[in-house]
Amino acid sequence: MPAEQASPSYENLPLVVGVDLGGTQIRTAVMQGDKLLSRIGLLTGENPTPDRLIPRIIQSIEQAVKDAGTTLEQIAGIGLGAPGPLNSHTGVVFSPPNLPGWTDVPLRTILNEHFTLPIFVENDANAAALAEYMFGAGRGSRDVVYITISTGIGGGVIAEGRILEGIVGTAGELGHMTIDLHGPRCNCGNIGCLESISSGTAIARRANEIVAMGKGDELLAFALAHQQDDTANTPEDSRHVASHNHVHINARMVAEAAAAGVPIAKQIITTAAEGLGFGLVNVIHIFNPEIIILGGGVAQMGELLLEPARRIIEKRAMKVPREAARIVPAQLGSDVGLVGAGALVYYDKTV
Amino acid sequence: MPAEQASPSYENLPLVVGVDLGGTQIRTAVMQGDKLLSRIGLLTGENPTPDRLIPRIIQSIEQAVKDAGTTLEQIAGIGLGAPGPLNSHTGVVFSPPNLPGWTDVPLRTILNEHFTLPIFVENDANAAALAEYMFGAGRGSRDVVYITISTGIGGGVIAEGRILEGIVGTAGELGHMTIDLHGPRCNCGNIGCLESISSGTAIARRANEIVAMGKGDELLAFALAHQQDDTANTPEDSRHVASHNHVHINARMVAEAAAAGVPIAKQIITTAAEGLGFGLVNVIHIFNPEIIILGGGVAQMGELLLEPARRIIEKRAMKVPREAARIVPAQLGSDVGLVGAGALVYYDKTV
Repeated sequence: MPAEQASPSYENLPLVVGVDLGGTQIRTAVMQGDKLLSRIGLLTGENPTPDRLIPRIIQSIEQAVKDAGTTLEQIAGIGLGAPGPLNSHTGVVFSPPNLPGWTDVPLRTILNEHFTLPIFVENDANAAALAEYMFGAGRGSRDVVYITISTGIGGGVIAEGRILEGIVGTAGELGHMTIDLHGPRCNCGNIGCLESISSGTAIARRANEIVAMGKGDELLAFALAHQQDDTANTPEDSRHVASHNHVHINARMVAEAAAAGVPIAKQIITTAAEGLGFGLVNVIHIFNPEIIILGGGVAQMGELLLEPARRIIEKRAMKVPREAARIVPAQLGSDVGLVGAGALVYYDKTV
Repeated sequence: MPAEQASPSYENLPLVVGVDLGGTQIRTAVMQGDKLLSRIGLLTGENPTPDRLIPRIIQSIEQAVKDAGTTLEQIAGIGLGAPGPLNSHTGVVFSPPNLPGWTDVPLRTILNEHFTLPIFVENDANAAALAEYMFGAGRGSRDVVYITISTGIGGGVIAEGRILEGIVGTAGELGHMTIDLHGPRCNCGNIGCLESISSGTAIARRANEIVAMGKGDELLAFALAHQQDDTANTPEDSRHVASHNHVHINARMVAEAAAAGVPIAKQIITTAAEGLGFGLVNVIHIFNPEIIILGGGVAQMGELLLEPARRIIEKRAMKVPREAARIVPAQLGSDVGLVGAGALVYYDKTV
């Protein structure tokens, strides 16, 4: 079914299975459009090698189908979102940093030995972009860029209704675009990537550096006072424990301190936000999108992050593509990856 | 005709007219594939307003058709490449810096009043990308990025055989991607664009700054000694005249000095080349192309520019998309824009 015919009236859409294969969790669901009919959550565990994990994925698919009160015969296909890099054309997962032990795993071929259904494998950020395009904030637009800002920064691009895949399916790594060639080294090995400047990890790193230099006393005091209020919701967050006689400050604490008016915290967030602004200028110049959708935990800071980013865009982006681009929050929340995985079945790559 | 059916056997291709509308020159040709059957060159002159220029474009089309010994009835369509920003969907040229007096000119509509043929208007860099994709270095690839490095830096992207247009047709401005957010201000108003670091203008600017600071004596001596050897081939080049008691050094002089071993010149070229390397890392991460085609006068420096750029790519780009991308020189030379304009007729936007 061509993507543009995907309809919000769920009765018209067939049932699909979506699997969101994450670094810590596997989520599986039977769904119709973005309506989940059943869902299974699994932890990947300590040693998530393919030989351990894939049988559990197969089990979870069978269980989700059962829980939805249906049978595999009623399912139109199975979509999997997985951490990149992977080849979406062949369904081979290369060696995602988040899935140790996975090297050149032919995920689609292996699953095809168990299921006779059409199976689609896609980079998780591309799947999320597809979800927002079909069922979320991008509905009705043909040129959509989705950026997720959390621990890292991921991207997915829909150009004229098609996922930008590239020759081996790794396109859309918007978090790994250098915006400061004299900037910090990124986890990916590159220098001054958007991710190394504007991600939650980057915000936390800068805050802790400043505290370590003795220039963040007010921030540290705020963090100590508010530590118990904070709810860990990412691996980064969970590391805000005292170690080596100092508190590890996370991105959320910095955002809260900035919102409460702590100057150094505001400065840290503004640096990240201005980096994001330059990243978005690049996206506007490169893709001329109709809509840029911002998702992920860090994007939930809202205006604290968006206001300085918008100021950069206003000042730096070319008028015509700038005025064509709306920047909006994501709509699908934490199920975006799961909905996107299922949406792969609705999206026909052969159009 | 879908792009993938474009054939190198010229007998199968219909005749088309291409018009390459540049800042100083308009070139018009009747062609079959990339074989030019007639060509007309016009200077845009001092005051190239639409009411003066468009009648001359129409005349040159009629003349080129006559010169090729054919009639308008034998022509399949007219393609125009023009400086951006423009809307390739509607054929409206917004307000190119290179075409003063042009503001929201409905070029396609105006030409349609004179010709009953299909008319296509496209950004000149996108048209050049199409030319290399159909008839040059990109033949046989489906995911192609074309970058032209001369006075400025332009880009055009072919993704899965389709020109990346964006919502108003301004996509592909790869020269205006920030790679150094603390870098120099670009002509476009942005900061640290690839163009502001790696274009011929940027190389010349840095050389002249260094000379003005008194740190470029050896470069200056080289430039003075070799001034007469230099052939001006861009507007920038033609400005290498003595003014304010100093020689204006252009990019070609710096390249020649670098090739001759002048250390400061090598350093200037290396800075530009490393900037290009980071730009190409971004292109590799964002597009995962099969082939990156480098055109334009500055790219003709060859290894002087490419070796440091490749070193950055080798060190900084992710393995999978890096190994998938070949970086090659453009093949179509100075007619690339003209061939691309004609190729627009072969490329069917409605596939």
